[in-house]
Parts: sequence; structure tokens; C-alpha cells
Amino acid sequence: MSRRGRFITLEGGEGAGKSTLLAGLHDHLLGHGVSLLQVREPGGTPLGEAVRSIVLDASRAGISAESELLLMFASRAQLVRERIEPALAAGQWVLCDRYVDASYAYQGGGRGQPFERIAALESWACAGLSADLTLLLDLSVSTGRARAAGRGAADRIETETDAFFERVRKTYRERADAEPQRFRMIDASQSPDQVLQAAIAAIAPLFEIGA
Amino acid sequence: MSRRGRFITLEGGEGAGKSTLLAGLHDHLLGHGVSLLQVREPGGTPLGEAVRSIVLDASRAGISAESELLLMFASRAQLVRERIEPALAAGQWVLCDRYVDASYAYQGGGRGQPFERIAALESWACAGLSADLTLLLDLSVSTGRARAAGRGAADRIETETDAFFERVRKTYRERADAEPQRFRMIDASQSPDQVLQAAIAAIAPLFEIGA
Ligand SMILES: Nc1ncnc2c1ncn2[C@@H]1O[C@H](COP(=O)(O)OP(=O)(O)OP(=O)(O)O)[C@@H](O)[C@H]1O
Ligand SMILES: Nc1ncnc2c1ncn2[C@@H]1O[C@H](COP(=O)(O)OP(=O)(O)OP(=O)(O)O)[C@@H](O)[C@H]1O
Ligand SMILES: [Mg+2]
Ligand SMILES: [Mg+2]
Repeated sequence: MSRRGRFITLEGGEGAGKSTLLAGLHDHLLGHGVSLLQVREPGGTPLGEAVRSIVLDASRAGISAESELLLMFASRAQLVRERIEPALAAGQWVLCDRYVDASYAYQGGGRGQPFERIAALESWACAGLSADLTLLLDLSVSTGRARAAGRGAADRIETETDAFFERVRKTYRERADAEPQRFRMIDASQSPDQVLQAAIAAIAPLFEIGA
Repeated sequence: MSRRGRFITLEGGEGAGKSTLLAGLHDHLLGHGVSLLQVREPGGTPLGEAVRSIVLDASRAGISAESELLLMFASRAQLVRERIEPALAAGQWVLCDRYVDASYAYQGGGRGQPFERIAALESWACAGLSADLTLLLDLSVSTGRARAAGRGAADRIETETDAFFERVRKTYRERADAEPQRFRMIDASQSPDQVLQAAIAAIAPLFEIGA
């Protein structure tokens, strides 16, 4: 029986550099002989990608905060069961571009859904699965938005106000402070290579036996 | 300021005759000068119809019970806020083809999601809105399936086993027994006109002032 894989999640605001880091980490881990599954949220399954296209559709004004929260967890519940859990059980490592912390930050901090409501959903929708390590790319809202703006049309969430994204950032930082064992906060204003090196250092302990 | 409308939900297994009754009730209420909104679940809003096409797509095997439950409530949360509540506030009556009892019956009784989990979702996703009257069309599984079979290709939920639909029926009946004030159970093996007359009798008290 193969040893269970490791579950690493990447979090941070728009344009913080998650996708860029993911590509670098992917290469790094493959170079260490790790068998890897890379997924994103919302999405990662046929159901999740269908949900993603509903949630991020910029033309879809007026989605209630409650519906958005429920859709995010519908995607997540499917992703955990259909892809992440089977991969970890088979010994693969899983790199996930956003996971449950994003719901606390965006639907909780950003849209004001109560954290207890999100915690209650997490307790059953995620099948008890939490990340072994969460890399939080922390960046000022203005820098993140400037980076993201270079990428073309904004999706429905990217059109939110600066105040919204300040609440998102604050919630992420509070969660990192509250769970220092699981989180590693990375200064995302550094160069892409510096960010990657910080992430590689954070991941190193996961290679140890029994970690 | 116009008087608040009435909220009437129709429930029952596949082929029980909900859509048939809805058409009859619609005519009856219009004949009494009632301004009416008729909606269905899942669906009834652009978001809800997109969710409906995910949930009922017969080619989409392997949707987890958790995701199905979350999607149903995502559709419902939007429907309540975007259409039902504004209509009731404007004095319209609302006829809804399935509502929250369907989640207890299908995702709860049918798929085994705990009732407390569903109750917790109901408490915040439905914005405190429960039906003034719920008409439960009660019918044997075999008769319901035989009727539904006449309508063409089965959707994802219609392909479930008889045992699944027996649990759905049992849960509906238990809920009707537990809330006799809100529910009116109708023997759906009767003729369409007998079913309509029973529904009209059940609705009559809603016309009274202060009802
Ligand atoms: N450390 C960095 N320094 C400067 N620019 C960066 C850095 N990391 C990423 N970028 C650039 O910023 C933009 C956004 O990066 P990226 O797409 O990786 O962010 P993201 O966190 O995945 O954003 P989103 O949340 O929208 O998916 C890209 O153009 C990328 O090349
Ligand atoms: N009382 C009745 N007696 C006999 N046949 C009926 C009766 N009511 C409806 N039917 C027929 O049974 C079939 C199913 O009815 P209907 O579509 O109204 O059920 P439904 O409860 O809306 O089903 P679904 O849950 O699949 O939407 C239709 O062909 C309809 O004409
Ligand atoms: Mg990205
Ligand atoms: Mg029908």
C-alpha cells in the first residue's frame, strides 16, 4: 500500500501570483519524484467547472451571497470526493489553487456570510479533509489588482470594490494567525523566484517520514 | 400598501400530478382575481435554471449527495430572494412546484443526508420563508412511475430505484403528519378533477382576511 499523499493549498487575493507559483511548484515537486494532481477551485470536476462558469460569469448580476456560498461548497464537495481524496489515498500529492479558506475570505469576510455558517458547511461538505499546508500569498490590494488587470476581462468577482478585497485580505491574514501550524504566509510582493523559494522551503518538511 | 400574498407549495413523487394540478389551480386562482406567480424547483431564476440543468442531466453520473443537496439550496436561496419574496411583498400569490420539503424527501429520505443538516440549511438559505400551505400529492410509487414513464426520457433523479422513491414517499408522509397545520395530503390516485377539487377546498381558507 502506498503512503498517503500530501495536500497543499494556495490562497491569496486576485493577482497575488497563485497560478504562477503553482507552475513553479509543479516542476519542483516533479523533480523530486512526486506524483502530482493539480486542481483549481471552483472547478476541477465536470460538475465543478459547470458551477464555476455560473459563479464567475460577469454578466450574471444579482447572485445572492447565500447562493454563491452554496455553489462554492457544491463544487468543493464534489472535488474532494471525486478527485482529491482518491489521489491522496493513492499516494499522490495534491496542489489546489484555492480551497476552503477562500470561502471564509471571499464569502465570509468579503460578502459578510457568518463564519460559523461556513464552518458548519466545511464540517460535512469537505469530508473532514483539511490541507497539510496552506501557502498564503499576501499582497496589497492595489498591487494585486494592477497585476490581475494585465490579464484581460474581469470575472464577476474581480469587479468587486477595493473595500471588498481589503476584507478578503484581512480575513486571510486572521486565519493564518489563528492556525500558524497549517499556514505559511509568503510576501507576494517579492519576485516570482523569491516567492517560489519561500514556498519550496515551506514544503520541505512535508517530505519527512511521518510528517 | 397591498396585502402580502400567499405562498403555496406542491409536493409529491415523480408523476404524482403536480404539474397537472398546478395548471388547474392557476386557472382557478386567476378566476378569483388573484395575481399569481408560478415557479418551479430547481429553477425559476437564470441561476436556478443553470443549476437545474446540472442536477437533472441524466448523463452526469456520480454527483455526490452533498453536492446535490448544496445545489438544490443554491437554486432555492436565489429563487426566494429574487422572485418569491418580492412577489409576496407585492401582494401576489406564489405557486411553487416543489420547495424545501423536496430536499427533506429526496436528499434526506432518498439519499440519506441527515435531516438536521437540511434543517440547518433551511434556517438561513430560505430567508425564513415557509409555505402557508403545502399540498402533498400522495401516490404509490408504481402508479407514479407508470404515469411519469409516458413522458419520454427520464432525468437523472427519475432513474433511481423503487426503494429510493419509497423512502421519498415515506419522508413526505412523515413531514405531513408532523405539520398538519401547514400540510394538506391529497390522494393523487383520484381523477385529475377530484385532485383539483380537493386542492381548491384546501386553499379556500387562505382567502379569508388575516389567514
Ligand atoms: N511575484 C510576482 N511579481 C510580479 N508579477 C507577478 C508575480 N507573480 C505573478 N505575477 C504576474 O501577475 C499576474 C497575476 O499572477 P497570477 O495569475 O499567478 O495570479 P493569481 O493569484 O493566480 O490570480 P487569480 O486569483 O486571479 O487567479 C500575472 O501576469 C503574473 O505574471
Ligand atoms: N390524477 C391523475 N390521474 C391520472 N393521470 C394523471 C393524473 N394527474 C396527472 N396525470 C398524468 O400523469 C403524468 C404525470 O403528471 P404530472 O406531469 O402532472 O406529474 P408531476 O407530479 O408533475 O411529475 P414530475 O414530478 O415528474 O414533474 C401526466 O401524463 C399526466 O397527464
Ligand atoms: Mg490564478
Ligand atoms: Mg412536474
